[in-house]
Amino acid sequence: MTTVPDKERLPAQAGFVVEIDKLKRVLRRNTLMDGSRRENDAEHSWHLGMMAMVFGEYAPEGTDLDRVIAMLLVHDIVEIDAGDTFIYDTLAVELQEKAERAAADRIFGLLPAGQTATLRGLWEEFEERRTPEARFAKALDRLAPMLANHHNEGGSWVRHGVTARQVMEKVQIIREGSPALGDYAAELVRLSVARGHLTPA
Amino acid sequence: MTTVPDKERLPAQAGFVVEIDKLKRVLRRNTLMDGSRRENDAEHSWHLGMMAMVFGEYAPEGTDLDRVIAMLLVHDIVEIDAGDTFIYDTLAVELQEKAERAAADRIFGLLPAGQTATLRGLWEEFEERRTPEARFAKALDRLAPMLANHHNEGGSWVRHGVTARQVMEKVQIIREGSPALGDYAAELVRLSVARGHLTPA
Repeated sequence: MTTVPDKERLPAQAGFVVEIDKLKRVLRRNTLMDGSRRENDAEHSWHLGMMAMVFGEYAPEGTDLDRVIAMLLVHDIVEIDAGDTFIYDTLAVELQEKAERAAADRIFGLLPAGQTATLRGLWEEFEERRTPEARFAKALDRLAPMLANHHNEGGSWVRHGVTARQVMEKVQIIREGSPALGDYAAELVRLSVARGHLTPA
Repeated sequence: MTTVPDKERLPAQAGFVVEIDKLKRVLRRNTLMDGSRRENDAEHSWHLGMMAMVFGEYAPEGTDLDRVIAMLLVHDIVEIDAGDTFIYDTLAVELQEKAERAAADRIFGLLPAGQTATLRGLWEEFEERRTPEARFAKALDRLAPMLANHHNEGGSWVRHGVTARQVMEKVQIIREGSPALGDYAAELVRLSVARGHLTPA
């Protein structure tokens, strides 16, 4: 464990702030809701933080929403090194895990030790999905592209040949974080199928 | 005051979430830290939320950092209608205020009434800069482009002919939110002048 001397503490923190600017250049599979360009991880993370504020009432009682927001701001930072993985690509998801752990070591390791542990802990909590906070955060992360695709004539579902059956597996993850948002997501899927923007099976 | 019926509550909230996607298309004057393109308000807001987490120890004792983060996620949403204003353009800043109030009415008004008040309150608190939370949030908002310009050979300072004297006025705003970050910002200005990336007066 390295210890950052006091006088190097603020410059080390600033170095981390500069490093994570790169998250603005990591592109996701889905587009902005108007379809104009692909979304990047940084603006996606902001949107999820806002969703936690707006949809917070649908989290289980006692959920610490401030922790949910912090987790969502941090959750994609490892993709600076590891890149984005399309959630319907199973093999890539497995290979991704090792790359993300190495990325977490490097990027969170730029911070003073106590902050390394805090931010890495938020990321691990999100990935493990064992706490109500992590399950709600993951639900929002899964709901966001459904909202985008629903408002963009199927969006990345159409481009990548995703079916309603596959999307319904993600709806189950939403339901585990928030039953009300799960019901809402299922309704979005039903409407998208009815409009011909998603194939049934 | 309109009241959103219960069954329209979640769709109204989703409508707000869809509407604020537009913040990803509002461009700022400064670029990403690598200079590759202009930064947008949504990714900027994410970056500020992260800065609040990382630099939180430099806020005055007792500052509610969760409130700072919420304020930073919300603070630029009015620019969806009102656009971004360059902080060194005094006349534009004055004209901007009226447009931003109208934008706040429209955009936060998409939400159920209680949430309209909460989010609009966060925006107003940020603008008024009377609480320690708002002063610290504003300090981070001023520090971010200094970090970007410092790491990008002067960046928007060079392009818009901004002088060190003008930047030092913004350093004072940083100091009011956080003396330690104010000192750090002053040091960035001194270094940028020494490197020829910022003219002294």
